[in-house]
Amino acid sequence: MKNRLTVLKLGGSVITEKDKDLTPNLQAIGRLAEEISQSQVSPLAIVHGGGSFGHPLARTYGIAEGFRDQAQLVGFAKTHDAMVALNTLIVGSLLDQGVPAFGMAPSSFIVTKKGRIHVFEEEPLDRAIKTGLVPVLYGDAMLDIDRGFAILSGDQIAAQLAVRMDAGSLIMAADVDGLCESDPKTDSSARLIRHLTLRELQELKAKIGRTSVLDVTGGMMGKVSELTAPVAHGVRTIILNASKPGNVYKALKGEEVVGTRIEA
Amino acid sequence: MKNRLTVLKLGGSVITEKDKDLTPNLQAIGRLAEEISQSQVSPLAIVHGGGSFGHPLARTYGIAEGFRDQAQLVGFAKTHDAMVALNTLIVGSLLDQGVPAFGMAPSSFIVTKKGRIHVFEEEPLDRAIKTGLVPVLYGDAMLDIDRGFAILSGDQIAAQLAVRMDAGSLIMAADVDGLCESDPKTDSSARLIRHLTLRELQELKAKIGRTSVLDVTGGMMGKVSELTAPVAHGVRTIILNASKPGNVYKALKGEEVVGTRIEA
Repeated sequence: MKNRLTVLKLGGSVITEKDKDLTPNLQAIGRLAEEISQSQVSPLAIVHGGGSFGHPLARTYGIAEGFRDQAQLVGFAKTHDAMVALNTLIVGSLLDQGVPAFGMAPSSFIVTKKGRIHVFEEEPLDRAIKTGLVPVLYGDAMLDIDRGFAILSGDQIAAQLAVRMDAGSLIMAADVDGLCESDPKTDSSARLIRHLTLRELQELKAKIGRTSVLDVTGGMMGKVSELTAPVAHGVRTIILNASKPGNVYKALKGEEVVGTRIEA
Repeated sequence: MKNRLTVLKLGGSVITEKDKDLTPNLQAIGRLAEEISQSQVSPLAIVHGGGSFGHPLARTYGIAEGFRDQAQLVGFAKTHDAMVALNTLIVGSLLDQGVPAFGMAPSSFIVTKKGRIHVFEEEPLDRAIKTGLVPVLYGDAMLDIDRGFAILSGDQIAAQLAVRMDAGSLIMAADVDGLCESDPKTDSSARLIRHLTLRELQELKAKIGRTSVLDVTGGMMGKVSELTAPVAHGVRTIILNASKPGNVYKALKGEEVVGTRIEA
């Protein structure tokens, strides 16, 4: 049987210095490239977030709020350019480790509608994976059918990729251990949820929708809402802490690792 | 009436140091970015060649000969990565001049068949142009339906773009004055052809096909065969020397400039 695709999402907060604009975490990028190379997992597709590369520029120019005037054009272009710069660093580290990392630009083949993926040209990506390349995508500034501009998160890309390419597993590499019963960043006794069913995930999503608390899951709201589609599709999904060395390697190898597993 | 698109192709030999691997000609890139900015032409799409960035790597790994074995994978990825690096320099220079230059990766939305464009997802590119961005594409390492891998020239992209986007004009910026009656690099008395009809272009193409001389047009064989489609489509086409300051500016403004004009 042919191996099914593994999709690895690298959180922006892991690969960049969150509090310093346009500053990569080169140590983490190098270590993760090594873990990915050593796992020898194939076929593999990687998606990374923007962290301090994409977000500050996108905020300055109001890209997520859509196209309003010509003055945003250079800002939109700069936001994309910053993401390409981050992508180039990650691709370069992977190439140094002998991984055939192939940078692919989401804004070149995806168009969103109200911020959701609408047009998605699969052929180059699909052929790249089948040939043995490791596509490396990223959260990006997008052309949007209704709003003109939008920001497409790496989370949405990774989740949709897993569904469209019928992936066997989806690894969400964050800077926390996984989903907790409360926010681990404000509640030190917050207990990690080790296992979640699709139904429990959907309940959590509904709860987030109802609550006035901004994000009960500790910055995980976006992930929770994106992950229902791949989990419902049967993709084995795990959220784990990529800041801890060895976790991504273990998850890629299918070994036991601390995190939140979500399964249908 | 809405302005029709201008497509500007920047030759790899103009923007890189031809004889030094992976070396950009930063002086030329900066000057051309200024000329483009000052012209204020809109809508505009730019395509650039690979010069000493793309060609040496592509040759080393035999990318143009197609996919043969896994050992080529990293080479394919490195060839694309080098082109992204060159693209980033050009986009950066244009952004510095206030041009909303938006890097787009051909290998992310085009698939070739025997080296010719086959799948071409137009929607992101089309929306980018209509929004007022200046897409900057490049010759690239491609996934190919029959051969696995192929090299897609900037010339082919620029010519196809002009046809698909119904461009009003196509400017081929080379490092020679245009097409000559013999090779200006070996024959100092070679006379520049200032005007060419579509019929004459087709005759020249047939002559190139028959002759045993490698390239009677002084490295222009590729251009001549790509340009018949846009010229037949009614796109005003000119080949000019971008190494001479001011030529690209004049052509973008529609002013008189030395070169080879080709018209239906």
